[in-house]
Amino acid sequence: MATLPPLPARGWAAQAADAQLAPIDFERRAPREGDVVIDIDWCGICHSDLHTARNEWHGTMYPCVPGHEIIGTVRELGPGVTTFAPGDTVGVGCLVDSCRECDACQRGLEQFCRGGVMTYNSPDADFDHATFGGYSNAIVVQDRFVLRIPDGLDPAAAAPILCAGITTWSPLRHYKAGPGTRVGVAGFGGLGLMAIKLAAALGAEVTAITRSPAKAERARAAGAHDVIVSTERDDLRRVRESLDLIIDTIPVTHALDPYVKLLRLDGTLVIVGAVEPITEGVDARLLLARRRSVTGSPIGGLPETQELLDFCAERGITADIEKIPADGINAAYEKMAAGQLDFRYVIDMSTM
Amino acid sequence: MATLPPLPARGWAAQAADAQLAPIDFERRAPREGDVVIDIDWCGICHSDLHTARNEWHGTMYPCVPGHEIIGTVRELGPGVTTFAPGDTVGVGCLVDSCRECDACQRGLEQFCRGGVMTYNSPDADFDHATFGGYSNAIVVQDRFVLRIPDGLDPAAAAPILCAGITTWSPLRHYKAGPGTRVGVAGFGGLGLMAIKLAAALGAEVTAITRSPAKAERARAAGAHDVIVSTERDDLRRVRESLDLIIDTIPVTHALDPYVKLLRLDGTLVIVGAVEPITEGVDARLLLARRRSVTGSPIGGLPETQELLDFCAERGITADIEKIPADGINAAYEKMAAGQLDFRYVIDMSTM
Repeated sequence: MATLPPLPARGWAAQAADAQLAPIDFERRAPREGDVVIDIDWCGICHSDLHTARNEWHGTMYPCVPGHEIIGTVRELGPGVTTFAPGDTVGVGCLVDSCRECDACQRGLEQFCRGGVMTYNSPDADFDHATFGGYSNAIVVQDRFVLRIPDGLDPAAAAPILCAGITTWSPLRHYKAGPGTRVGVAGFGGLGLMAIKLAAALGAEVTAITRSPAKAERARAAGAHDVIVSTERDDLRRVRESLDLIIDTIPVTHALDPYVKLLRLDGTLVIVGAVEPITEGVDARLLLARRRSVTGSPIGGLPETQELLDFCAERGITADIEKIPADGINAAYEKMAAGQLDFRYVIDMSTM
Repeated sequence: MATLPPLPARGWAAQAADAQLAPIDFERRAPREGDVVIDIDWCGICHSDLHTARNEWHGTMYPCVPGHEIIGTVRELGPGVTTFAPGDTVGVGCLVDSCRECDACQRGLEQFCRGGVMTYNSPDADFDHATFGGYSNAIVVQDRFVLRIPDGLDPAAAAPILCAGITTWSPLRHYKAGPGTRVGVAGFGGLGLMAIKLAAALGAEVTAITRSPAKAERARAAGAHDVIVSTERDDLRRVRESLDLIIDTIPVTHALDPYVKLLRLDGTLVIVGAVEPITEGVDARLLLARRRSVTGSPIGGLPETQELLDFCAERGITADIEKIPADGINAAYEKMAAGQLDFRYVIDMSTM
């Protein structure tokens, strides 16, 4: 296999921070032991894609093909792959490789591996450039990082589960959301909506916390049992000291104290939407008074992502999406940049 | 018993924020069902005493008799007390009562009871003033809030266990410090020194983190296996991502990020020294990258305080103290205000 030629691929790439995305021809590595060659059918657009394409987080290597919410069909297999067959519907999320030997990898927490390879804009040992993501017709990925998309899960609407979904699922599971627990979800974009759906499906009592009263109905439809407006003192007072867990998806710097106050004894606020990373200072007395914690959680590991996909199939949970053709990516970016969307754009790769 | 007269008591009190402490005569409540009347032998001086006496935290009710590290001898018992006998050596810490019915009380976490009554400067249902603390010859306390001082524990040197000790013990136990865990202790005052001793005695690998290289020997003598200087990049780099738990006893506002970076996956920084309560902002990426938590912990509950006293007796652990007469309180306050002391002053009440 090592002598096979690289795989030709097409995609949509940013060539510079201020450039629109445009078609590009490039190469994927020649399939090797353990590789799965996937024809990409759908790719969700995550807000990270935009930040990276525009170099807003610095370190973007151009050309940059974004995309880490990938749904596709197995085209062929490298040697040694036994868990997939051509024609299988599969997914690839934010990670395409890791060291597999460290403690984190052995615990299935590949998101914490120091040798983790992100799906795009990550140093790639195979080529002289960064990894290329899912805005593309095909991808080559090691089998450990390929996920099974269960029958019955709409492939396009499943794409955002691979990033927005797992990012909220991982802390919901780690902090044991379920019957008898009260979960708050702060922020109401793609992550917030998934967090509401998943927490409610896990059996938790869910309180959506939004700045916009107009979103209350939408939050209830997603499964929220209660909706409070973060600027309403009476709302905050009503929920004060009652939540076990808050999934904080707010992507801009915000005061944490009003949310911390909603936590009960031993409650935890988990930051998952740290697009603007430096938090405001916290009143430590609020932490001490109820032994509350502020923590963060990044995406998730492969076993828990598979668990989530299986859970979503069983419960009929998908993301709220809008399908777009490949040449709609730039317009979608503009809308995304203009404000937090409460649905995910998913690119139809058959249009590429 | 309800018709018994109040108990005359003497103490040292601040009469105003800018006044020196001076002798005062006052009354304790008449002993009632469940009360223990204690002749106070020793009382530790906590930094909180000074903050409260000087109204630096606001809300001080004058006259204010501080003191919540109380060691004494049982003088007599109210009806129904079966767990103590006259002559017993006993202790009273930061709490003298609680509702006993809430979830926190039922779990022995009285420090989180909303109806908790602090040992001094707390509203007191029995009188028209706040509770009076341990800078006094006697105190009347409900038996649930009286601790047994085991034989073999030096009474004077045990006094600081009741505040400095339990404040560090509670998070060490809650976050499971022990063999196989690595614990950092930030700050090197009364709390820091107790944290080092207790973490080491629990079997944890202890790293003292100090601003002052001069304190290294002292930290090692207390049980630290390693000492790093918080301003030395090489020291910080060496310990980076290696600690499971940091007990942060630093009493002034400080950047948390350099400490958070020392935590490994799922590590926790516990603020216990929040004298200046508002933290600096934290880089949420540091939290996300390793699922690290920042939390806080206040004093401790009664069962865990008794557990700590028993542990200290068994292991021969006491605080480093300097005994002073009652008329040395004001001079001790001056020294305490001038800089964080690495020992505790303990007032000899026989001098009052």
